[in-house]
Amino acid sequence: MSREPPQSTDEQPSEPRRDGAGFHTAFRPNFELREVRRGQRPGSRYVRVMKVNPKGFRPVAPGVLEATPEAHAPRGNVGRRMAAVRRVLVGQPLATAAQAHERLTKVKALAVFSSDALSSVAYATEEILLVLVVAGTGVLSGVLPISLAIVFLLAVVMISYRQTIHAYPNGGGSYIVAKDNLGIVPGLVAGGALMIDYVLTVAVSISSGVAAITSAAQSLHPYALELALAALLFMVVVNLRGVRESGTIFAAPTYVFIASVMLLIIVGVVRVVLGGLSGHNLLSSAPPEQVVHATQSIGIFLVLRAFASGCTAMTGVEAISNGVPAFKPPESDNAAKTLTTMAITLGIMFLGIGVLSHHFGLVPNNNETILSQLGHRVFIGGALYYILQASTFLILVLAANTSFADFPRLSSIMARDNFLPHQFTFRGDRLAFTNGIIVLAMLAAVLLVVFNASTDRLIPLYAVGVFVAFTLSQSGMVRHWWRLRGHNWRRSMTINTTGAILSGIVAIIIAATKFLLGAWVVVLLVPCLVGLFYGIYCHYRGVAEQLQVPEIPKPLPEQRIGTVIVPIAGINRAVIRTLAYARALSEDVTAVHVTDDLSGAEALRGEWERWNNGVPLLILETPYRSFLSPFLTYIDALDARSPGSLVTVVLPEAVSAHWWQNLLHNQTALRLKLALLSRPNTVVTDVPYHLR
Amino acid sequence: MSREPPQSTDEQPSEPRRDGAGFHTAFRPNFELREVRRGQRPGSRYVRVMKVNPKGFRPVAPGVLEATPEAHAPRGNVGRRMAAVRRVLVGQPLATAAQAHERLTKVKALAVFSSDALSSVAYATEEILLVLVVAGTGVLSGVLPISLAIVFLLAVVMISYRQTIHAYPNGGGSYIVAKDNLGIVPGLVAGGALMIDYVLTVAVSISSGVAAITSAAQSLHPYALELALAALLFMVVVNLRGVRESGTIFAAPTYVFIASVMLLIIVGVVRVVLGGLSGHNLLSSAPPEQVVHATQSIGIFLVLRAFASGCTAMTGVEAISNGVPAFKPPESDNAAKTLTTMAITLGIMFLGIGVLSHHFGLVPNNNETILSQLGHRVFIGGALYYILQASTFLILVLAANTSFADFPRLSSIMARDNFLPHQFTFRGDRLAFTNGIIVLAMLAAVLLVVFNASTDRLIPLYAVGVFVAFTLSQSGMVRHWWRLRGHNWRRSMTINTTGAILSGIVAIIIAATKFLLGAWVVVLLVPCLVGLFYGIYCHYRGVAEQLQVPEIPKPLPEQRIGTVIVPIAGINRAVIRTLAYARALSEDVTAVHVTDDLSGAEALRGEWERWNNGVPLLILETPYRSFLSPFLTYIDALDARSPGSLVTVVLPEAVSAHWWQNLLHNQTALRLKLALLSRPNTVVTDVPYHLR
Repeated sequence: MSREPPQSTDEQPSEPRRDGAGFHTAFRPNFELREVRRGQRPGSRYVRVMKVNPKGFRPVAPGVLEATPEAHAPRGNVGRRMAAVRRVLVGQPLATAAQAHERLTKVKALAVFSSDALSSVAYATEEILLVLVVAGTGVLSGVLPISLAIVFLLAVVMISYRQTIHAYPNGGGSYIVAKDNLGIVPGLVAGGALMIDYVLTVAVSISSGVAAITSAAQSLHPYALELALAALLFMVVVNLRGVRESGTIFAAPTYVFIASVMLLIIVGVVRVVLGGLSGHNLLSSAPPEQVVHATQSIGIFLVLRAFASGCTAMTGVEAISNGVPAFKPPESDNAAKTLTTMAITLGIMFLGIGVLSHHFGLVPNNNETILSQLGHRVFIGGALYYILQASTFLILVLAANTSFADFPRLSSIMARDNFLPHQFTFRGDRLAFTNGIIVLAMLAAVLLVVFNASTDRLIPLYAVGVFVAFTLSQSGMVRHWWRLRGHNWRRSMTINTTGAILSGIVAIIIAATKFLLGAWVVVLLVPCLVGLFYGIYCHYRGVAEQLQVPEIPKPLPEQRIGTVIVPIAGINRAVIRTLAYARALSEDVTAVHVTDDLSGAEALRGEWERWNNGVPLLILETPYRSFLSPFLTYIDALDARSPGSLVTVVLPEAVSAHWWQNLLHNQTALRLKLALLSRPNTVVTDVPYHLR
Repeated sequence: MSREPPQSTDEQPSEPRRDGAGFHTAFRPNFELREVRRGQRPGSRYVRVMKVNPKGFRPVAPGVLEATPEAHAPRGNVGRRMAAVRRVLVGQPLATAAQAHERLTKVKALAVFSSDALSSVAYATEEILLVLVVAGTGVLSGVLPISLAIVFLLAVVMISYRQTIHAYPNGGGSYIVAKDNLGIVPGLVAGGALMIDYVLTVAVSISSGVAAITSAAQSLHPYALELALAALLFMVVVNLRGVRESGTIFAAPTYVFIASVMLLIIVGVVRVVLGGLSGHNLLSSAPPEQVVHATQSIGIFLVLRAFASGCTAMTGVEAISNGVPAFKPPESDNAAKTLTTMAITLGIMFLGIGVLSHHFGLVPNNNETILSQLGHRVFIGGALYYILQASTFLILVLAANTSFADFPRLSSIMARDNFLPHQFTFRGDRLAFTNGIIVLAMLAAVLLVVFNASTDRLIPLYAVGVFVAFTLSQSGMVRHWWRLRGHNWRRSMTINTTGAILSGIVAIIIAATKFLLGAWVVVLLVPCLVGLFYGIYCHYRGVAEQLQVPEIPKPLPEQRIGTVIVPIAGINRAVIRTLAYARALSEDVTAVHVTDDLSGAEALRGEWERWNNGVPLLILETPYRSFLSPFLTYIDALDARSPGSLVTVVLPEAVSAHWWQNLLHNQTALRLKLALLSRPNTVVTDVPYHLR
C-alpha cells in the first residue's frame, strides 16, 4: 500500500486542520476545480467548499478521506441490534489491512486444509473391502495391492501438486492452472467439477459424522437431519469468524486423530510382530485359511470398482494448492512442506490400516466399521479405543471444513473472472468470503434435506469431480512447462505428465464403474455448470461493453431537466415540500392526480385553484381502479411527444418512524418506483417527508 | 356521476381535436396557468403545452382525462403473463361504473348470505343432543323446549334485524349500528367479535365439510388438511371473481339442501302421522318408554349448555343486514324479504328436525350424524337420502362463503374509518375487496393448519362473538329509536330492546357455559383486537395531523436544490449520464467514490483529472469494506455543516433487461436507497441506464 500513514488519529475529528498536510490539502484540488467552473459559468452562485474535517473521517491523501471505525457504526435500532448479534456470533470486524496477519502457520494449515483428506482413512479401506466382499471373502487380500496402487497414485499427485504450488504462489487451484494453460472451457470444467465435490464433501462428511453420533446414541436417530443442519450452522458461524479462528478450533481434533491412528498402526504392527511369535490373542478370531484363495480369478471390473471406491481417500488433496495465499510467508515453501507432510501422513495411515485389515482378515459389516474393528483388536477396548472413535467422529465432521476453506476462495476467484456473480468476491466483517460460505452451506443443506442426511446415496457421486480436476490441472502444468521451458523443465514435465495420465485413467475408471450408481449426475451437472458460468460471463461482458467509455471521455453533455411530474393524492405538507422541490428543478412541472373518484377529484381541483400555486393539476380518471397503469400510460404519451428527452417523476413520500407502520400505508410509491425503474428516460426522485 | 359522456371514443386517439369541446378545453386551464407563470418569471424558457390527446386517454372535463382500457393493459413480459393467469382465474376486469350492475337478486342473495345460517341445521340439533345425552338418554326430550326457545330467539333477532335493514340501507352491520349509536368502543367490540366469528366460520365449515368427504372415502383421510386448503383456495378464487359469480355458483347447492331437508320433514311428518295409525316400521327402533322420564331433574347448567350449543344455529343471521348494498334496488326491501325468508326457512328446518329427532328418540353417535339417521329412517336409504347427504356436504363447505361475502365488506368499512389498514378498501379487478378476501383466507388457513382441520376444538370458540355483536347492534338500535323518536318509535324500540336483552343473556350463557372449553380465547382476543384497531386509528390520525395544511395553503416556498452528491464506482456511460443530470440540477455537485482499494482509487483519480469534467471527485476509503456506512457518515457531515438544507443524492443505476440479471449485480443501489429513505432532508434521485 502506497498511502501515507494516518496523521490525525488522536485529534478531534471535527476540528479544522491548519497544517496544510491533511484535510485542507485533500480538498484543495476540488476547490480549484470549482474555481475554474465558476470562471466558466458567469453568474453562477458561489460554491461553498468544505473547509473542516468531516466527522468520522481522516484525510490520508489529497481528495481522499479514510473512514474511521465510528463511520462504520451501525445505524438505527434494528441496525444496532443486528450488529450486536453479529459481534457475538462472528466477532469484531477486521480492517482490510489486517488481511496479511490473518494467515495460517503450517500446523494450523494442516488442520484446516487436510481434515478432508485425512478423514477419508476412516472409510476408504472399508469402501474397498465392501466391493471385494461381493466376490467372496477369499478375495479380500486384494485390498493390499489396491491400497499400494492408491498410495502410489497419492505420491504422484502430491509431487505433481508440489510443482503447482511453486509455479502458482497466488493459489493454483485446478481452475486457475487449467484456465491459464488449457483455455477457458477446461478451466470451467475443472472449477465446476471441484465445486460439486466441495458441496458433496460437506454433505457426506457431516452426515457420516452425524451417523456416528446416532449409532452411539440411538435415541437421537429421529433427529439426524436436525443434528446435521445444526452441525452445518456451526460450521458456517465458525467459518464466518475468519480463517485463523477456524484453524484454531480445528487443529486439536485433527492432531488427536492423526496420533490415534498412528498409535493404532504402531501398536498393531508391534503386536503382530511380537504376536507372530506368541500370537495367541490377536489372530485367534482371524481365519487365515481364507487368505490363501486370494489368487482366484475375480472380475477386472470388480477390482476397478474397488480401486475407484478407495480413491475417495484422495478427495481434498488439492486443497492446499488452492489455498497457498492463506499460508504465512514464504507461502509456497510452507504450502509445499504442508502438502508433503499431509501426503506422507495420509499414505502411512492408509497403508497401515490396509495392511492390518488384511493381516487380521477383517470383513466389513453393518454394525462396526473396519477402523473400529481394528481399534478393538489392537487396543483391546481400552481408553485409547474410545479416543480413536471420538476423534474419528470429530474429524469426519470437520472434513467439511476443507470445503468451507476452499469453495469460497474458488468462487471468489471465478467471480473476479466474471464467471460467477460478483457478490462472491465480497469479504465480510472478518475477511472471510461471506457469500461463498453461505451459498456452500445452503447447497449442502439442500443435499442433506433431499437425501435426508443419508450418506449411502451421496458416496457414489463423490470423487469423479476431484479426479477430473486433477487431470485438467496437471495437463495444464504439462503445457505450462512446455511453454516456459525453464530450468529442469523436462523433469517437471515428466512428473506432471505422469500425474495427468494416471489421474485421467482414474477419472475414467471412477466414472465408468460408478456411472449407474450416481456418477452420471456429476457427468451431467458439469456441462450445465460450465454453461451457467459462461452465461454469467457473457452477461457481464455485455454490460461492460454497453457501459464502456473511451479512455478519456468526452466532456459532460449539457442536460435539460425537461418535464417534471408530481403524482399527488391530495394537498398535504409532504406534497407541498415535493412541489417546491419540483419547481426548483424545472419550469415545466405538472401535478397529476390519478383517481377513481371524480367528485373527490373535483373537490381537489377547487382547492387547487384557490391555492393557485402556479403548478397545473391534471386529473386522470381510472375506471379500473389501477393507479399505476394510467400514470405510466401518461408518461408514455409525454415520451411519444418528445422522444429521447427525460421525464422526471418527483414522488412525495411520507416515511413512517417505524418500519412496521409502513404496513398501514398503501405501497403505491414503492410499486411506482419499481415500475418506473424499468422505463427508459425516466428519472425518479424521492422527496421524503419524515413522520414522527 | 356528473361528467359528460365521452365524445372521442371512436377517433384516432393521437389525432388533435379541433372542436374545442374535448382535449383542448381540458388543457386550456393548464396553458393559462403556465402563461401566468411565464409572466411572473422573466427569462424562463417557454413551456410547451400538450396540444394533442394523449394516447390511451379520453378527455371528460376540463383538466380531466379518463383512462381507456388500453391504458390499463399489462406491461412487460412478466406483467402480461401474470395478467393472463389472472384473466383465467378471476375473469376480465370490471370498470367501477359496473358496480351498480354487480348486484344480487333475492334468489342469489339467499344463497350467498344464508348458506352459513342454513347449514347449521346440519349440526345444531346434534350439538344439543350431545350435551343432553351426558345426563342420560332419559332427558333427550329436552331437545324440544330448547329448539322452541332457539326458534323464538331466531324470530326476535330476525324482527330486530329487519328494523336495522330499513334504518341502515347502506349496510347496517353490528359494527356500524353500535358505533353510530353507542360510540367507538362498542362498535370496535362488535367489529372484532364478528371478525373472529367470520374466520371461525370459514375454518369450521370447511373442515366439517372435508370431514364429511373423508368419512365417506376413508382413503382420503391422511389428506384432510390438504383437501381443506384446496377447498379454501377454491373459495378464494370464486370470491375474487366477484359477488355475482359467487352467487351463481352457490345458488344450486343451497336450494337443493333446502329442498332435501324440507322434503325430509314433510315426508317424515306425513309418515309419522300415517305411521302413528299403522306405525309399525317407523317406531320399531325408538324406545318410547325412555321419553316419559323427561321431567326428571337435570342440572340447569347442562340445559343452558345444551341451549348454548344449539345457538350455533344462529351464526350468520346478521350477514344480510351487513350486505344490504349488494342487493338489487330497492335494496332494503329486498334484503328484509330475504332475511324473513331465510329466518322462516331456518326455523322450520330446525324445528322440524328437532321434532322428528325427538319423535324417533334419536341418540347422537360417532358413526352417523343425526341428520343422516333421520334421512335413513324417513327416506329408508333411497336416492333422496344420498341427495340429502351430498347437499349437506356442499352447503357445509359453502357456508364459508357467507364469511367471504361479509368479512371483506366489514373490513373495508372499518378501514374507511381508519381502524384497519387502508389497503382493505381496495377493490380488485372484479370489484371484490381483494385484500379482505386474502386476509380472511390466510387467517382461516392458519386455523386449519394449527388445528389440523379438526372441528372439535374450534366449535366451542364459536357463537360467542356473534351474540356479542347481536347484543351491541340491537342496543344500538334502541338508542337509535330513542334519539329519532319517529313514527312508531315505541314499538320499534320495544322490539329491539327485547332483542338486545335476549341476545345479551344468550351471549352470557354461551360465554359462561363454554368458557373453559375455549370461549375464553374469544373473550381475551376481542379486547386485543379493539386495542389493535385503536392503535391503527391513532397512527392514521397522527399522520393526518402531521401532514395537515390550512384550508388554503401558503404559496409554495422557494426551494434551493443545494448540495448534490453522485456516488460512483468508476467512469462509465451510466455515470456520465448521471453526472450530466446532476450538473443540470445544481452548481454544487460532488462525485464520491467509496472504496477499499486505494490503488484502484488513485487510478480513477488519474482518469478523472484527464477527463476534467468540472465535477470534483472525493474518494472515501473504507477499511471495513462497508460502502454504505462511510457514505452515510459523509452525508451526516454535510448535514452538520448546513443543518436543514437539502442534500440530493443522484444514483447512476444500470438496469438489466431481465429481472433475474439483477441477481448478478451488487444490490448496493437498492440498499443505499433504503438507507437514505430513512434520513431527513435527503432527496434520492435515480437515473436509470437501461441495458439491452
